[in-house]
Amino acid sequence: MLYVVGIGSGNEKHFTKEAEELLNRVDLIVCYKNYKKFVERFNKPIYTTGMTKEIDRVDYALKEAKDKDVALVSSGDATIYGLASLAYEINAVKNYGIEIKVIPGITACSLASAILGSPLNHDFVVISFSDLLTPLEIILKRFRYALEGDFVICIYNPLSKRRKEPFLKAMEILSEFAKDNNYVVGIVKNAGRDNEKYLITTFKELYKDIERYLEFIDMNTILIIGNSSTKIVNGKMITPRGYLNKYKI
Amino acid sequence: MLYVVGIGSGNEKHFTKEAEELLNRVDLIVCYKNYKKFVERFNKPIYTTGMTKEIDRVDYALKEAKDKDVALVSSGDATIYGLASLAYEINAVKNYGIEIKVIPGITACSLASAILGSPLNHDFVVISFSDLLTPLEIILKRFRYALEGDFVICIYNPLSKRRKEPFLKAMEILSEFAKDNNYVVGIVKNAGRDNEKYLITTFKELYKDIERYLEFIDMNTILIIGNSSTKIVNGKMITPRGYLNKYKI
Repeated sequence: MLYVVGIGSGNEKHFTKEAEELLNRVDLIVCYKNYKKFVERFNKPIYTTGMTKEIDRVDYALKEAKDKDVALVSSGDATIYGLASLAYEINAVKNYGIEIKVIPGITACSLASAILGSPLNHDFVVISFSDLLTPLEIILKRFRYALEGDFVICIYNPLSKRRKEPFLKAMEILSEFAKDNNYVVGIVKNAGRDNEKYLITTFKELYKDIERYLEFIDMNTILIIGNSSTKIVNGKMITPRGYLNKYKI
Repeated sequence: MLYVVGIGSGNEKHFTKEAEELLNRVDLIVCYKNYKKFVERFNKPIYTTGMTKEIDRVDYALKEAKDKDVALVSSGDATIYGLASLAYEINAVKNYGIEIKVIPGITACSLASAILGSPLNHDFVVISFSDLLTPLEIILKRFRYALEGDFVICIYNPLSKRRKEPFLKAMEILSEFAKDNNYVVGIVKNAGRDNEKYLITTFKELYKDIERYLEFIDMNTILIIGNSSTKIVNGKMITPRGYLNKYKI
């Protein structure tokens, strides 16, 4: 049987009881090589591959799952930019007939939101800026519609050393919308891990000093752009749910 | 100190280690009355209020937090339609000066996604259909932009016994878009709790038989509408991340 397991940040405190118990009883753990450190404490055989080797990793996990209990581990939630859908697809295309079960985990935007205050506290969009598998024009089209809808926007994979174009083009689009609204922006790096850092700023500050932010933001960073009601309250980034517009306190 | 704590479905297996340890050491737990059953096992004093009494509940928790460690418990994640932002707001408006910390939890869309297969495995929108605090025209505007952007759409609070209009109006909008695409729809009721049920269908099936679905769907139901690539694979609802378009297997 194959379990596709989300482990949140990888920090032990963010594992659910279900994930913890499962990893204690499987025969084999399969994961991305940089996440090995998060699952070594279970003392199980671990198979890893590197970035862009996702198909090898999933195919190996499925083959081993024929006569073992295998955990294919994703950070965050296994169905949110994780490997769950690829496991179902390869299982079908190759006719493996393996039973698959997903164990949910805390996704990065929940971790980032808790650190920043409560920016996700109204309707929001989750979008990845990686153009490895998604054409840039689709990313930018979605980003624009998210702004038109006045959603809070949570950006995964905002940029990498070699991939800055989607981010820069998106900030150009945001600058059009920012004429009417100085969006609050929260940035969290290494959420829940060693070296966690965060900062809260506004789009205008960010855009004015974009070179500095391009240095700070990396693959392990989550950006949250507020909606038109998001504000900074006692140094935290807060999106009101609307109670105080409706009720007197 | 006030901790605003997400407990996922409420089922013990979905608590993180952090939430578990925290609830074992606070002096007081404050929550919605129907969630009392999820926290009784911690043997702490519990203060509850009912629906629409959120301000009373948060205000009480903040006042008690002056000289106690208090956990204000939300189901799912405390910053996703939970009470975290209201706690920050009341704390500021009333000048309580209480230190607040959010403990993230698994939100309902991750739970629902794991049950359905992997429908959230690409860019998605989370939107609540409750018009108690958000005007209906904003809900419908956002829903339309989410469809224009070809996002996967996850709907919280789809309808209640007395609130069916937002859902019915949204389904009318969806029927315009469904001329080009028969959207896959996943519906999960009581995710992670007793009496969990799910079904996977298409928009056309749902719309044809809408009276039956209006009976099935309730406040404790999550709806996920796929994007144009979402498909049914071996009975599960899968949104491909795009690997198999790019790489040969």
